[in-house]
Amino acid sequence: MGALRFHSLCLFLSTSTRAASAPTRLSPLHHHSHGHLVFKAKPYTLASRDLSTQVTAEAEAPENIEKHPKSGQEGFITPRSHDFNAWYADIIANAELADYGPVRGTMVIRPYGYAIWEAIQDYLNAKIKETGHKNVYFPQFIPYSFIEKEASHVEGFSPELALVTIGGGKELEEKLVVRPTSETIVNYKFTQWIRSYRDLPLMINQWANVTRWEMRTKPFIRTLEFLWQEGHTAHATLEEAEEEALKMISVYKTFAYEQAAIPVIVGRKSRLETFAGALRTYTIEAMMGDRRALQAGTSHNLGQNFSRAFETQFTDENGQRQYVWQTSWAVSTRFVGGIIMTHGDDVVIVPIWKKDDEKTGVLNAAYSVEKVLKTAGIKVELDASEQRTPGWKFNFWEMKGVPLRIEIGPRDVSSGTVVISRRDVPGKQGKVFGVSMESSILEAYVKDKLDEVQSSLLEKAISFRNSNILDVSSYDELKEAISQGKWARGPWSGSDAEELRVKEETGATIRCFPFEQPEGTKTCFMTGNPTEEVAIFAKSY
Amino acid sequence: MGALRFHSLCLFLSTSTRAASAPTRLSPLHHHSHGHLVFKAKPYTLASRDLSTQVTAEAEAPENIEKHPKSGQEGFITPRSHDFNAWYADIIANAELADYGPVRGTMVIRPYGYAIWEAIQDYLNAKIKETGHKNVYFPQFIPYSFIEKEASHVEGFSPELALVTIGGGKELEEKLVVRPTSETIVNYKFTQWIRSYRDLPLMINQWANVTRWEMRTKPFIRTLEFLWQEGHTAHATLEEAEEEALKMISVYKTFAYEQAAIPVIVGRKSRLETFAGALRTYTIEAMMGDRRALQAGTSHNLGQNFSRAFETQFTDENGQRQYVWQTSWAVSTRFVGGIIMTHGDDVVIVPIWKKDDEKTGVLNAAYSVEKVLKTAGIKVELDASEQRTPGWKFNFWEMKGVPLRIEIGPRDVSSGTVVISRRDVPGKQGKVFGVSMESSILEAYVKDKLDEVQSSLLEKAISFRNSNILDVSSYDELKEAISQGKWARGPWSGSDAEELRVKEETGATIRCFPFEQPEGTKTCFMTGNPTEEVAIFAKSY
Repeated sequence: MGALRFHSLCLFLSTSTRAASAPTRLSPLHHHSHGHLVFKAKPYTLASRDLSTQVTAEAEAPENIEKHPKSGQEGFITPRSHDFNAWYADIIANAELADYGPVRGTMVIRPYGYAIWEAIQDYLNAKIKETGHKNVYFPQFIPYSFIEKEASHVEGFSPELALVTIGGGKELEEKLVVRPTSETIVNYKFTQWIRSYRDLPLMINQWANVTRWEMRTKPFIRTLEFLWQEGHTAHATLEEAEEEALKMISVYKTFAYEQAAIPVIVGRKSRLETFAGALRTYTIEAMMGDRRALQAGTSHNLGQNFSRAFETQFTDENGQRQYVWQTSWAVSTRFVGGIIMTHGDDVVIVPIWKKDDEKTGVLNAAYSVEKVLKTAGIKVELDASEQRTPGWKFNFWEMKGVPLRIEIGPRDVSSGTVVISRRDVPGKQGKVFGVSMESSILEAYVKDKLDEVQSSLLEKAISFRNSNILDVSSYDELKEAISQGKWARGPWSGSDAEELRVKEETGATIRCFPFEQPEGTKTCFMTGNPTEEVAIFAKSY
Repeated sequence: MGALRFHSLCLFLSTSTRAASAPTRLSPLHHHSHGHLVFKAKPYTLASRDLSTQVTAEAEAPENIEKHPKSGQEGFITPRSHDFNAWYADIIANAELADYGPVRGTMVIRPYGYAIWEAIQDYLNAKIKETGHKNVYFPQFIPYSFIEKEASHVEGFSPELALVTIGGGKELEEKLVVRPTSETIVNYKFTQWIRSYRDLPLMINQWANVTRWEMRTKPFIRTLEFLWQEGHTAHATLEEAEEEALKMISVYKTFAYEQAAIPVIVGRKSRLETFAGALRTYTIEAMMGDRRALQAGTSHNLGQNFSRAFETQFTDENGQRQYVWQTSWAVSTRFVGGIIMTHGDDVVIVPIWKKDDEKTGVLNAAYSVEKVLKTAGIKVELDASEQRTPGWKFNFWEMKGVPLRIEIGPRDVSSGTVVISRRDVPGKQGKVFGVSMESSILEAYVKDKLDEVQSSLLEKAISFRNSNILDVSSYDELKEAISQGKWARGPWSGSDAEELRVKEETGATIRCFPFEQPEGTKTCFMTGNPTEEVAIFAKSY
């Protein structure tokens, strides 16, 4: 299978694309075999863009709008430049990535969105196993008393818990927490599984759903329930735990760069932003298309905070009882939001014919090209539906983010060639005519082009990111940068109170102290004190 | 990757095996490098075998018992003949398949148990996609009002619901059901996604956790929370829905026979045993080692029950609004219970040496054999730990169900051969000496042996099953068969009341009307009326 690349057009990250920079209307011109042409002026859209107005009643859906056979919905895509949030909601709905659940803040992940999550899972699951972790599954119901054991953990999570109070028709004696994360229940078991240093390191992972009662929600980015992997490890020493936490944030970083073409910034969280119960939190921070920061993955060195709360001890080589040192780390379906408009497919083939006598030849050629590419391990979709025009299909698959389109018409059939269009290069410039259908040539060409798209996306994203981070040496400069919507990077040794003040006055938080630091001692722009580190400030999701 | 076979020793299904037929004690003879010999008379076992006595307090674990570096626990395995339930609990604990969660009836699936589930997932996920279904994810919180919409559904599920009543610190206006199954929330979305016949069939699947507040629980077989896949489809006609329901039960049957070596009986459920809300339920029923029946997978033709309750309609080719016809089907972690003592690995290599100067040669040979087999796609575990004797390792891996063991000692190294032992054939009879280490020979030999083990297991299981199903032609004969612990097969046209009477008087239920039926009209053993069908009665889990 090899590594799965998101040959992605990351609209969030690239500076401009066709679908994003101009209003797009999918023209629902039907010419299907039964001959009725169906069109409805009012596009079928979600009942509301705002999750807070979700209702349990069924949404009113116009009944006689025809849908794309690949299940596409007609709709108007708000230009990104006009309203980023509306654009995001439109893309989610029209590319059928997700839909709203009946309960406020919940989300149904639809096939195209779930395929992105499966691609993330495939890659990370392999890496997690390669690095020595084993998959397990823990119950999602946690006794309320567990959450209370670690002081900062309960403080961080108690406001957003969902509680089961009735089971099998009876009021429960102890309320059950629907897991917001599993450190507590994992430690409950670790106390039983770990006895001596020979049981360490103990390294497990689970793929699970988690629930956090969030008030402001947004599909994928912040939902009441989401899917994730959570790794949990126990070690004999602080050093090993630190090494593990760093290793896993590095796995996430590699994934972001190499698979998703997202040039994240890796660093350490400030004390205020550290995970509730952790000693240190490492993060990968991505710059979205609106330049807000998205925390796309975290890795925590938990120190002995949970092991002390749960008495998770081991007998060391000298027969002494010691508390274990722990880590935990997670990537969630939030990442799907970060790579929205990526896709499960690499290539879409659109056959084009006008007359009925051209149809068989064109379709046969299309099926044969499909087979060649599939055999080569490329994910390919053949859109052979007759209900839509080629133009409609071009738009539809562009919106879904498929990076390469292969067009095959009657003339291509006679010359034994195809036309290949790159999604990230608009117009004729991104089109190559006369690529041979011969399998080895076509395969090599397509793979090469996919690599090119990937590099080009990453390059664009890096340049977008770099041009939107300003180095600041005073608080005024920081305020100015943030007010321009940019990220600010500056020397920092402020207190928690000063960090909070920045947040209150500018809306920006410390995203991280990046691993990549300029050399030498600097002067904190807030306190004037000497400091070794710069921090990155930004508004975030 | 190819199909994954469970080269399994299904203790539940085979009539006798070493580990099952005799009491086994893993002798914890340590001779690890630090020189202390640790032994404790009282084996480390679970606090209780009975989930109903689970407590939230940590179990008392002896602190200085050494664990196998592969994380095995010492313990005594109750002979299966002595007490089947105790044997099952011992196997679950000692083979580290699962452990008890803090909340009554919940379970932690440990790495070895989870690996079995992952193997089931890998196989079924591929088949589910091949048969045209797409993966999605639905929220697990369902408004209580949804459950009430379909009359028999609410009747079937309301006694075993877990309810969330508090979210984010506030009492909720409407209680939320933690999903026991997803037909209701799926229909809520289907009403929005389905508009015309062109949107049909709509075929989705999800891998998810579900919650049912069961009172009598048993690891894997019946737990408060479990993992499963649930398929949901909508069709334009009853015939298509029926075809789909039959297709999926057939996928499950093939899986059981070909992968798990479990010769299930496929059939239709009686009306009493039909899924709450379904028109017809198809089932695969497996005979466990104690001859109880295990319902290992079900597929439901839901008819229009849910579509009428939720108004899930489509416009047909004539422009008429019609209710869709639906199916749903599921296999859960219960299946892991059915193939307990199966395993994730095909082969374990145990290197054997006495003197230090033999060690390097033996280990090098073992690593090289491991590499050969891994390259050939065989799942292999090399147990090179120095803390345990070869004899201890033999027992340990037998208990975990690994079907082939490769032993390599100093003499084997000099002759360039290995010894291969089959787990399902005890003693010398199952041992072959002098198998060449040469990669092509060894690979072919091992693959061949694994196939043999698989066929042999299936054969034994079929013969065990067949010898425990009695044909009955009177109610007295049925009572006699059931009292002997067997299954009874007989002509049946009784009423619901008569079926209930059988249950009350014998403890047996109709497991199914098997697809394989004897020809001709028979006489119902209960009513004396003519009937076309025989039913199978058994006590079940």
